[in-house]
Order: sequence, then structure tokens, then C-alpha cells
Amino acid sequence: MTNTPVDRALRARAAKVIPGGMYGHMTADERTMPPSFPQFWERGEGAHTWDVDGNRFIDYFCAFGPMLLGHRNPVVEAAAAEQARAGDTLSGPSARMVEFAELLTGTVAHAEWAMFAKNGTDATSAAVRVARASTGRTKLLKAAVAYHGANDWFTPKTVGTTPQDRLNIVEFDYNDIASMEKAAAEHDGDVAAIILTPFRHDAFVAQELVDPAFAKAARELATRIGAALILDEVRTGLRLDVRGAWESLGVRPDLTAYSKALANGHAIAAVVGVDGLRPAAADIYVTGSFWYSAVPMAAGIATVRTAAEIDAPELMRVAGERLKAGLEAQGAAAGMPLRLTGPVQMPLLGFEDDPELKKAFAFTGEAAKRGVLLHPWHNMFLSTAHTAEVIDDTLARTGEAFAALNS
Amino acid sequence: MTNTPVDRALRARAAKVIPGGMYGHMTADERTMPPSFPQFWERGEGAHTWDVDGNRFIDYFCAFGPMLLGHRNPVVEAAAAEQARAGDTLSGPSARMVEFAELLTGTVAHAEWAMFAKNGTDATSAAVRVARASTGRTKLLKAAVAYHGANDWFTPKTVGTTPQDRLNIVEFDYNDIASMEKAAAEHDGDVAAIILTPFRHDAFVAQELVDPAFAKAARELATRIGAALILDEVRTGLRLDVRGAWESLGVRPDLTAYSKALANGHAIAAVVGVDGLRPAAADIYVTGSFWYSAVPMAAGIATVRTAAEIDAPELMRVAGERLKAGLEAQGAAAGMPLRLTGPVQMPLLGFEDDPELKKAFAFTGEAAKRGVLLHPWHNMFLSTAHTAEVIDDTLARTGEAFAALNS
Repeated sequence: MTNTPVDRALRARAAKVIPGGMYGHMTADERTMPPSFPQFWERGEGAHTWDVDGNRFIDYFCAFGPMLLGHRNPVVEAAAAEQARAGDTLSGPSARMVEFAELLTGTVAHAEWAMFAKNGTDATSAAVRVARASTGRTKLLKAAVAYHGANDWFTPKTVGTTPQDRLNIVEFDYNDIASMEKAAAEHDGDVAAIILTPFRHDAFVAQELVDPAFAKAARELATRIGAALILDEVRTGLRLDVRGAWESLGVRPDLTAYSKALANGHAIAAVVGVDGLRPAAADIYVTGSFWYSAVPMAAGIATVRTAAEIDAPELMRVAGERLKAGLEAQGAAAGMPLRLTGPVQMPLLGFEDDPELKKAFAFTGEAAKRGVLLHPWHNMFLSTAHTAEVIDDTLARTGEAFAALNS
Repeated sequence: MTNTPVDRALRARAAKVIPGGMYGHMTADERTMPPSFPQFWERGEGAHTWDVDGNRFIDYFCAFGPMLLGHRNPVVEAAAAEQARAGDTLSGPSARMVEFAELLTGTVAHAEWAMFAKNGTDATSAAVRVARASTGRTKLLKAAVAYHGANDWFTPKTVGTTPQDRLNIVEFDYNDIASMEKAAAEHDGDVAAIILTPFRHDAFVAQELVDPAFAKAARELATRIGAALILDEVRTGLRLDVRGAWESLGVRPDLTAYSKALANGHAIAAVVGVDGLRPAAADIYVTGSFWYSAVPMAAGIATVRTAAEIDAPELMRVAGERLKAGLEAQGAAAGMPLRLTGPVQMPLLGFEDDPELKKAFAFTGEAAKRGVLLHPWHNMFLSTAHTAEVIDDTLARTGEAFAALNS
């Protein structure tokens, strides 16, 4: 969309009152995104979003994960509105907290308890704290580059943090059993936890599914050395398997962190864990002003129930295969071979021979002009509102985008 | 209330699926609260809340701060509902973000930019990171005991954290200029920031207003050594002075952290700052899945506008003076002298000769049985829904509570 006067005006106003005009993972300035991408959004409905200038997009950002059942899903929004009529942030939790904890422990295979928070970072940080409290140890093993949050010791950009913040983090290579074993051996007796994402979803590079042998090795290593295995499902939760991303591999973590999709856009995060870590979880002090608010929990209950009932991961898998097949065929036909890597429910788009992402920016920029919001370097997200019809509409538009690039 | 079968049943269910049955600052088990206090809440309306057994309370917790304009304030809820009909968590921010940043920079005296987050801890942590990014220094000076959040280096309970987490925190005594100067001198050249609450509001002990000379000394010290002065208004924001808590003292911080009351119960936090810190604020990487959600921003705009229009701090001050005078007179008459300390908008209740808080537990326990929710050891909060009539109704009930204790 080239005609975006409202967006442009808002960017100019934002530059005066917001540092950098925008910050964080939703920044859409021209250093990070194609110039045709809007920064400010007006509304969403199902698989579609409208920018502040009224341009409609088929949305493959899905708010970077939260939109699992589509924007303004009627079941979720009805549950949220009903709870809002009673109360949201009260002087203690509502019954929804117990109901949601019961639902999660009944849904996620390894979960015997649940705690709630607001940010994905809250959940990953709390999981690490539970592991340290339980083991009395300090070191956290994580894969190099892997994003687990934006606190002082997880943030990928260390500006404003101190060297001391990372003293207890030890990195290894994802899917590399030997490097993981080596990292553990170097801190023998002091490893509190190993934290892993269900697959490798670093930005800018092709996504990589987990090697089942690596997942099993992580489980065995953690058990052998008495450390907790933490699965960071903040990005993947409810999109791969509602029982837990590694359940089909027969690998169960000790702790899982959830956020993003858990309440279809309402702000909530959760840590779930095994019984052996319950005393440690009860002993740490983590809290927040809105962690017990009832509306996001009512929305979360509706979201998790619906996702399980309709088998949301399978719906998104079928739609994702259709998108992947269509886009890869279009790219090949246009002489611009591309691949969608990672699980098809949350694919990352990448062109061959495109080290500077010029093709990715050009293609997603042309797609945006035709009403399709695809990300040039971060994994995308499908929702259950991305039906076959929506995928076919997408492909008609991306076909035109390829044609424009070749004209 | 002694007849709480629903609450009891929920506590039993919670014990199975939530560590400790509950966690964080809203825990109401009998180790921390009088046995007549409910743990689970059903709804709220104005100054009143109802527990899950249908018992009504005049609410002086106000969700530990968020309820500024009363539960389910119609102006705020209408703004939130209108925004929810368009969209909440979209694939980028809405125009509400710019409008809210403009409103805050137009309201808070020192604010020239604003950033938003979800938790109070997010805001205090981000403010420290801005200060470190700007100065290239590491040390944070804070008052001993003062609560500024629950992250690994702020949490008052260190279980599950590491010794390294606190290496860069240096403590001094609140209202003690010499101790603050000494702490700064001991880390000459490496102090990134001084963080202070507008008054001393530690739990369990009498609250203490800031000595204006101390506030001025903190400002002068920070300026002299090139450190940032951070005011933590997470708990006080919009209750003392909408322009900033120290504005009437003529003391302006460089950064202020807000959360709790900012959107009358909707989950949001903010950091506002001076122009000199804008580049550092633009350079750090802080973000969260729901930080740009539009509904809490719409609610925040309505809350801040309303608070300024009706002079919410003054309304709560008048009501708070009435409550303080009434309760202190009742205590004296009953032979149980008590004081409400700190600003009357957010007073802390304490009895004379009550080192183990036995009187505080007994009195607040009896008050709860009569439909008044007062906190035995943490500061309480008034809202603008606490009218003179509500205060008088409160005092009629607390009078009966004192009579019961003396019978």
C-alpha cells in the first residue's frame, strides 16, 4: 500500500513522544521492514487486519503469535466480555484461575501444576527461578542465538545490561548433542536447567526441526545431572501439539513456559511443571499487578478448550501445507526459488541466494501492496481462521507479486 | 465472613494445581492474612467487591492499586469495550499508543517521551536499563528494603536467584542524605541511577513521607554525578499528583515508572523520561507479546484523562482524611490506639504496641466479617469511588469491629 497518509502522520507524531518512534519486536521502520508495511493498525477480524488507512491484509504475523483462533474470535471474546461484566483485576484471583490451572494440567501431558504471569519473559524467567530454587544451582544451559525473552540476561541486545547479568548462562549448539554434553560437563554439579525451544526458530536463518535424538538426549542429560529440562513454548504453544510440542517424540520436559497464543491475544503467560518441582515453585517470589486478572484467564480457558476441541494444530498444519506448496511452486515458476522452513503452522520464508534478504524484502513488499502481510526474516504464524479459501486468496495475490517482480 | 464454602472448596482445588494454592502478593492464606479474608473474588463495582460466596466488602485493597476510579468504572470500561470491538493485540500498535504517549507527556511534568509494557517490574527494569545505556555505568542505588519489583535482582525474596544477580545494587537508607551520598561516593564514577519511591511505603512498618530536603538532595546528587534519578511511581501513580508525585516539591526525576492505576485495572505499565535519555531509550531492546495491545491503552487514556479532569488525588485525599480521622478516633475510644501512616490516599494501618501484628490481624479480621476489607500490614488504597458515604458506612462497620474486640 503506497497510499498511507494516516500511518505516515502517526509515525511523525510518534517520533516526538516515543523513543525511536517505536521499539521492540513490532517496529516496522524501513531499516527493518519493507517500506510498504504499515506501522499502525486499526482492526482485525479472523485472518484479516486493517491498517489505519483502511487497507486490508491477509495477516501472517498474527500479532507474532497471539492470534491462534483468528482476530476477535467470537467464542473467546464472548468469554472475555462475560467475565468483564463481573470483574477483571480484583483484590485477589477469581475462580477462573483455578479452572484454568485445572484445564492446563489436564491438557499438557507433563503438567501437574500451573502458575500465571503476563509476559513470555515472565514465564521463562520464572521457570529458570523454579529450577534454581529446586537444585540450589546457578547455571542455565541454552542454545546459542536462541531467544527466550527480553530480560537483562536473555535479551539478544545487551545495551544497558551489565556483564554480570550473563555470568550464569552457558551456550551450546541446537541439535548438537556433543556440544550440549560438553557445556554440561564444564559446569558439572552446577547446572540448574537446560532451556530449549521445541525447534530452532532463530530469525534471519532457515528454521530447523528438532532432531528427535537431540530432544531425547536433552531429557536424559537433564535427568542424569539432576537439572530441570525447560521447554520454551512461548512461541509454539498450541500451534504444534496441545499436549506439548515434544509429546509425539515421547519427550516430556519438567517445566514449560507459555504465553502468546494462550488466550488468543489477551495478555497472559503460564509456567506448568511436574510434581517434583512444586515445592520450589511455591517457594519463589514472583508476582505482578495484573497476574491474577480474570478476563485473560476466561479468554485463556476458551482458547485452550477450543484449540483442543477443533485440533487447532492439525487445522493449521493442513492450511500451512497448502501455503507452503503454493508459495514454493510460485517461486520456482518465477525463477526465484524459495523455501518455507520449520513447522508449516509457523513457517519462515527464505529465498535461495539471498544473503542480504533483498529478494525477501522485495517479495514481501510487493505482497503487502497486494494485501498479504508476510514477514521477510521472522517466522510467520497461521491461525485457524486461515482456511483453504484464505490460503488460495493469498496465493492469487502472491502470484501477482511474483509477476510484478519479474516484469 | 465465616460462611465461605465456595472459597474453601476453591482453595482445596487450587492446592492441587497451583503451587502453594496461590502465590505472589495476593496470597490470602492464614499465615499471611486473617482467617476471615477470602482468597477468591467474584466481582467488583465502584468501591465494593464480592467474594465467591457472595459476601460484599467495601474494598480498601483496590487490587493493590489498580482500581483508581472504582471497579468497572463506566468511562474506562466503555473506552475499553469500544477498542475491543476493533482490535486489541494486532500485528503492530494502534493509534492509541501515540495518543497515550502524547497524553502522558502532556500530563507528567518531566515527561518528553513514553514507552509501554505490562508489569510494574517491566517499567522499573526498563528505566534502569535506559540509565545504564545512557551512562555506560553499572551500579543502581536504592533504599534498603524498598520494593521495586519481582525480577531476579529486585525481588525481596532471593530463593531461586543467584548471588551475581545483585552485584550491581547498592543500598542506602531512605530519607538519609548522608547514607545516600556515602553509597554514591563508594561507587564514584560507576553509578548509573538512583531509584526512589515518592515516599517510604515498605510493608509491616509505618509509612514515612519523603523529607523534601532528601528529595532535593537526591536530585542534586544525581545531576552532580551524572546518574539518572528514577522515580518509582508504580504504586503511587495518579494517586498523589497526576503531574508527578514530587512536582509540588519542585523536584523532577529523569525517569518515572508507572503501572498499577494507569489504566484502572487493565494491564499496562509505562516508563516516561526526559529528552536527554531518549537516545538510550531508543537503543535498548525491551519488548513483550502484549506490550502494544490497544485495549489497555484505550483504557489508560480514559483513566488518565478522567483522573486529571476530576482531580482524582484531591478527591481521594479528602476521603482519606475522613477515613483516617474516623478510624483513629475509634481506636482511641476503644483503648486500641492506631495510626494511619503515609498519604491518606494510600494509608497503612498500624496499632500502637503491636509488634507481632496481633491487634492488626484481630481488627482487620473483625472488620472483614462486617464487610470492610482492610489490610493488616500492607498499605491500602482508596479510589475515587470511595465517597464520604462509603467512608461513613465503613466507619459504622469498623465501630462494630472495635466493639466486638472489646466485648
